[in-house]
Amino acid sequence: MAAARRLPVRAADTTLTPAEGPPPFARIGVVGLGLIGGSIALAAREVWPTTLVIGVDRKEVLEQAMVRHAIDVGADDLGMLAEADLVVLSAPVLQTISILRDLPDVVAGDAVVTDVSSTKRAVVRAAADLPGRLSFVGGHPLTGAARGGLGSAAAGLFVGRRWILTPSGDLPGEVVSKVSAFVEAVGARPMPMDPARHDALLAFVSHLPQLTASALMRVVGEAVGDEGLDLAAGGLLDTTRLASSPGDIWADICATNADHLEAAIDRLIEELSAMRRGLGDRDTVMRAFAAAAAWRDRLSTRDL
Amino acid sequence: MAAARRLPVRAADTTLTPAEGPPPFARIGVVGLGLIGGSIALAAREVWPTTLVIGVDRKEVLEQAMVRHAIDVGADDLGMLAEADLVVLSAPVLQTISILRDLPDVVAGDAVVTDVSSTKRAVVRAAADLPGRLSFVGGHPLTGAARGGLGSAAAGLFVGRRWILTPSGDLPGEVVSKVSAFVEAVGARPMPMDPARHDALLAFVSHLPQLTASALMRVVGEAVGDEGLDLAAGGLLDTTRLASSPGDIWADICATNADHLEAAIDRLIEELSAMRRGLGDRDTVMRAFAAAAAWRDRLSTRDL
Repeated sequence: MAAARRLPVRAADTTLTPAEGPPPFARIGVVGLGLIGGSIALAAREVWPTTLVIGVDRKEVLEQAMVRHAIDVGADDLGMLAEADLVVLSAPVLQTISILRDLPDVVAGDAVVTDVSSTKRAVVRAAADLPGRLSFVGGHPLTGAARGGLGSAAAGLFVGRRWILTPSGDLPGEVVSKVSAFVEAVGARPMPMDPARHDALLAFVSHLPQLTASALMRVVGEAVGDEGLDLAAGGLLDTTRLASSPGDIWADICATNADHLEAAIDRLIEELSAMRRGLGDRDTVMRAFAAAAAWRDRLSTRDL
Repeated sequence: MAAARRLPVRAADTTLTPAEGPPPFARIGVVGLGLIGGSIALAAREVWPTTLVIGVDRKEVLEQAMVRHAIDVGADDLGMLAEADLVVLSAPVLQTISILRDLPDVVAGDAVVTDVSSTKRAVVRAAADLPGRLSFVGGHPLTGAARGGLGSAAAGLFVGRRWILTPSGDLPGEVVSKVSAFVEAVGARPMPMDPARHDALLAFVSHLPQLTASALMRVVGEAVGDEGLDLAAGGLLDTTRLASSPGDIWADICATNADHLEAAIDRLIEELSAMRRGLGDRDTVMRAFAAAAAWRDRLSTRDL
């Protein structure tokens, strides 16, 4: 994947090429055809033209998925997954956990199960109850788009992006290799990580920025109203871009990572309070800005 | 200015055309040739080719300004402003206030004085001590760029952007008209406002987002280090884009708008605390996200 590593950060328009050799999975079921699930379906069909892609979602979404050639077959219940050898759960976290409980009654034989949830401890805990024939490898592709939904899905969404995998328990090594191969084939960089470490880091790197953007947007809007928003420049637009995110997905993330998020919010409140106390003190402001700018510099020069 | 209103938000590459009729000012002095001052100098030279543009800054900056044809003449002290009939102060707020004290000894005759500071009460108070022959109209162009400094300056930086003017005291109406005409000629939309109202609104719309972005970047960086930053996606990049801002400019803004900023930080801390208490409560998260998304929608559909 050395070549993919040098691609630009947003490479959703990149075309994938069919993989050589036999596909790792013959029948892939994707539950939830939003931005991530839809992109996985589109990518799988490009990379392995002979693999059957089964979609599970509401009827309207299935129709749209058919029009976009994202899936071969679709259903609005899990029954269609009976013969799947890979199941990708791409629903909000709590739904993913609920589907994990139903899977043993639905999938008939051996299968690999993975997910794309933004928190991993709760999902991995729930997956521990799966029977041995269903091997679970938690996943989290680190990508996104300005808008969610199948309409924004793209086969190239994962090209060059990191995709965290959280294998746990007594998994056959072959299962982890197959999931890694799947992730690499759709252009991403698999990155193994402990589920607890994942949740601790993502609380700061992803979840805190989201809550901060939403809190800031609400506070600013309610304080200044439309008259004040007319005075906004690019800075407010950038800082609040995440505030359009859908609450249902985030309610699940907040609920399943509350402990780490509480700690992260506390740290931010401490820093804001220190800034507040030091507004009139040149050295305090200069030090805070210098520290922030140094981290920002390290962030923006990364190959994310 | 109806046409300019329909231009895209970032129109820095737009070419200005020379104005018809006699220029409103014959000798314009620009003190501080950074992003804003440099762009004002470049714009003035494009719009009024016969007007003399005098730059005041450090010698290295003056050299760069000469190479870019941003100024006709330059000096590293205020003495060159003796014959100016418009003085534009584009230094950080506290320097602007200090220069206002020196101006009466420097400018020999009648002149209009304006500034571009991000806070207005302190500057307007300082300008009240100017002698009657120096007419002050506070200003604040609502624009910016990813990077500061003369290197990022562009004649078209102000095209389509709002430019707040805070005339106060017993100003001849003709002075305000001339400054408005100047602002319109460089492509901006003049917007009169009370200095206190300006500072109250900008505390939320501009200063709070800046402090939030800096606080967030510092907290995230210190919590997760380089290993964690590797997991960042576009969301953290957007939310912390402002964290590269220079501390010296912001120390002055914080010092001269501390009362409003304290209130704004308090509101944000309240909202973050409410979110923290409600992390496990679906309704609380959904309501907070819905409110934020609604304001974000109103923000992003504006013609800023």
